[in-house]
Amino acid sequence: MAQEEHASPAAVAALVPELRAICGQDGVLTDLSRRRTYESDSLTHHRAVPGVVVLPTTAEQVAEVIGLCTSTGVPFVPRGAGTGLSAGALPHTGGVLLVTSRMRRIIEIDPENECAVVEPGVANLDITHAAAPYGYHYAPDPSSQQVCSVGGNVAENSGGAHCLKYGFTVNHVRGLEIVLPTGETVDLGGKAADAPGYDLIGAFIGSEGTLGVATRITVNLTRDPARIVTLLAAFTSVDAGGEAVSSIIASGVLPSAIEMMDSLSIEAAEKAVACEYPEGAAAVLVVELDGPAEEVDTQIQEVVRLCAAAGSFETRTASSAEERALIWKGRKSAFAAVGRISPAYIVQDGVVPRTALPDVLRRIAELSVNSGIRVANVFHAGDGNLHPLVLFDDSEPGATERAEEVSGAILDLCIEHGGSITGEHGVGVDKVCAMPRMYGPDDLDTFQRFRRAFDPSGIANPDKLLPTPRLCGERPGVHKDVHPLVASGKAELF
Amino acid sequence: MAQEEHASPAAVAALVPELRAICGQDGVLTDLSRRRTYESDSLTHHRAVPGVVVLPTTAEQVAEVIGLCTSTGVPFVPRGAGTGLSAGALPHTGGVLLVTSRMRRIIEIDPENECAVVEPGVANLDITHAAAPYGYHYAPDPSSQQVCSVGGNVAENSGGAHCLKYGFTVNHVRGLEIVLPTGETVDLGGKAADAPGYDLIGAFIGSEGTLGVATRITVNLTRDPARIVTLLAAFTSVDAGGEAVSSIIASGVLPSAIEMMDSLSIEAAEKAVACEYPEGAAAVLVVELDGPAEEVDTQIQEVVRLCAAAGSFETRTASSAEERALIWKGRKSAFAAVGRISPAYIVQDGVVPRTALPDVLRRIAELSVNSGIRVANVFHAGDGNLHPLVLFDDSEPGATERAEEVSGAILDLCIEHGGSITGEHGVGVDKVCAMPRMYGPDDLDTFQRFRRAFDPSGIANPDKLLPTPRLCGERPGVHKDVHPLVASGKAELF
Repeated sequence: MAQEEHASPAAVAALVPELRAICGQDGVLTDLSRRRTYESDSLTHHRAVPGVVVLPTTAEQVAEVIGLCTSTGVPFVPRGAGTGLSAGALPHTGGVLLVTSRMRRIIEIDPENECAVVEPGVANLDITHAAAPYGYHYAPDPSSQQVCSVGGNVAENSGGAHCLKYGFTVNHVRGLEIVLPTGETVDLGGKAADAPGYDLIGAFIGSEGTLGVATRITVNLTRDPARIVTLLAAFTSVDAGGEAVSSIIASGVLPSAIEMMDSLSIEAAEKAVACEYPEGAAAVLVVELDGPAEEVDTQIQEVVRLCAAAGSFETRTASSAEERALIWKGRKSAFAAVGRISPAYIVQDGVVPRTALPDVLRRIAELSVNSGIRVANVFHAGDGNLHPLVLFDDSEPGATERAEEVSGAILDLCIEHGGSITGEHGVGVDKVCAMPRMYGPDDLDTFQRFRRAFDPSGIANPDKLLPTPRLCGERPGVHKDVHPLVASGKAELF
Repeated sequence: MAQEEHASPAAVAALVPELRAICGQDGVLTDLSRRRTYESDSLTHHRAVPGVVVLPTTAEQVAEVIGLCTSTGVPFVPRGAGTGLSAGALPHTGGVLLVTSRMRRIIEIDPENECAVVEPGVANLDITHAAAPYGYHYAPDPSSQQVCSVGGNVAENSGGAHCLKYGFTVNHVRGLEIVLPTGETVDLGGKAADAPGYDLIGAFIGSEGTLGVATRITVNLTRDPARIVTLLAAFTSVDAGGEAVSSIIASGVLPSAIEMMDSLSIEAAEKAVACEYPEGAAAVLVVELDGPAEEVDTQIQEVVRLCAAAGSFETRTASSAEERALIWKGRKSAFAAVGRISPAYIVQDGVVPRTALPDVLRRIAELSVNSGIRVANVFHAGDGNLHPLVLFDDSEPGATERAEEVSGAILDLCIEHGGSITGEHGVGVDKVCAMPRMYGPDDLDTFQRFRRAFDPSGIANPDKLLPTPRLCGERPGVHKDVHPLVASGKAELF
């Protein structure tokens, strides 16, 4: 169904009485000023005021709201805490914005089966707080973990600094109750491992709200490690830091995190939080090891030795929580800190196979020199997930366009090296037209066919994730705006 | 499309000249005697002679064969090494059996990126052999690993004794080239982590040949551990063994394997291979630890202590390869060995949450006493995957039926306790009618809709995985034999 058919503010306004009957008076927001507070997620250069905002409190309400959307053809956009960085929760002006922030019950902490059952609006870190008394935590740790919602993590397959060792959200979700775009509620997986049938949990995780809304999530709990040690190692070049990363991985030691910052991002972090990283460092690595005490103590010596062999001129290790926080402070502040050294910046998010890192970093440096646009590099070095910060002065004519060009060229480099256009921020609206740079028409058709099997009338987070000519122009690999397979829902399908 | 429409030996015979043009003279088997050698996989009580057998050698040949099936409406059944235990590779008498055994090239071993790229017919253990010189191995280790194919492992999401620590096949596949049932070739994932778009790798893995054929598989390589220690612990009751399992897991130690055998399976193993397990044991645990030497040495002491606390009367530890093999000999021979103590048996495969193990084992013992049917228990205790061996004398009237009843009642117990009808053997034909005992109609509809998105004309391994009235009768939760969404393939979809 062409998207425009959905985009009717009148159609959505007509739903308000029924939405109120489902979610209650205070569960439906219609005032422009209140709707406007939801006009963007954390990627603020995409904005749209939602037709109406609903705040359901139960799975049944979610199913009824989506059932109403299905029967009337009005689109809906799911939203968790709104911390996404790809405009995946950008509202639809003629649609329902379905916000899960009132569904924040932790239903069960089950240490014996090493899992927790939660509602989608629960903040990531709140699971860890609830599990802490049992000696467990929830492993995926996006930097927004104090506020981002578990439902949003599921939609984006969120990672974090420690996904090198512990994997992404998909590696930590055992079961999902989801409301499909047809209004049906289905259960995928559960507490026991490896259920028969199609593993749609994996496909749902990272589907960016296009396949429905998770209303109940069963996640793995991970036992707290006996020891955690954090190492800061300073190098005189990015190449030397990269060499240290390669030799650490080659040694068989698996750190929980290996983060790298280059001189420009170190400079920004020093200005912002005075993290006191070693002077003269052209690159620093933050390496964290966790596990049984004997293992960690042996391995940290090995890592220090490998950093020295790669040319580190100073290393600091910390095992108390306070000292470790001091090392992480610079890294964690880096994105925000870049505001201190540049009026504007773009955070890019790309992935390359780890072995391609040195080459890609050199090519990014060349791009920067040739364009006169500064690029600060902060990245998850262990798994090849780059977050280049493209710095520019938006008051200078043409600078924004040049920065966007450099940012796009960095993505091209990632693709050229067998990598990906996004590591953990998602596609959303922001990268939807970049998808054909990564996938051929058959690949995109397969995705589209899969999407339409779940959302035959195209009402679930439309215009996100997959390119259409209306969004991206007529290019090879871009879909025709497809007609739904059937008019609506399951009844006609079977 | 109703299955019967496909089942025409004449239709498949008409394809032979074209199949020969694609796969060569020796790549197409039509003689009855040669076709008959493929009439079953390892679950031999399901048999059907395939209409024709093709043995392609390249991905292009696979795509052409499937393209021909699509355009003519002739079904195909993919088959790897035929070691499956759920009749997932049961041939279709009016269809093409597509055997991958000639596609056994190891295309690349890439230790730097810790992965290997292989064709689907490569034997599981051959990846490990190829990676060994670099200090790596392929982690999933089904007991058939010397012969089973990686393509088959992908289709079944195979596990093995060590999946407690290392996970299933789905945790070790990074990229797939697949030929869809429409004849299109698509790439999913690749060497870099977490590609954008739907994670269809997870959904394809374990799809039992219903979504197409993997023609190129990129798998993770896992570094060989510095030390491996195997422990045998003997107990005077199954309950005491179960208690030891619980306390090992609760201690935070994560063994690579925890296997349990009860007295009847020990008796069988002794008769078959004289494994010399401690006399008088009502249960033994085989616990394996791997990792850095310091860690393993500390943890094995802890595990021995926990077994003693749970009542073990004898423990033996082994760290040389020979001694370890001696401990494993009894466990590995157990299935075949049961033939020594019973004329016939059914191997059941169910999963329960680990905490439900003691209760389920007691209930199985009751079932056995009440029915007079002996049940030997051999299982992956660490992850709750049971393999009860239901023993009976098939020459005794009614014994087979009683054994099948007990076997079915064990599955009911698994479901009742929040578990699953299959842990690692798959659904195939064997358990297709048990699916509604685990999933509701909406769940099964969702699976079916997903299947039809990829296989609109229903030609890929029909009659497997999802129940239909023709297979299972008209029961709640069983699908109507659905009409395809469109007549054939992509063209009409978009």
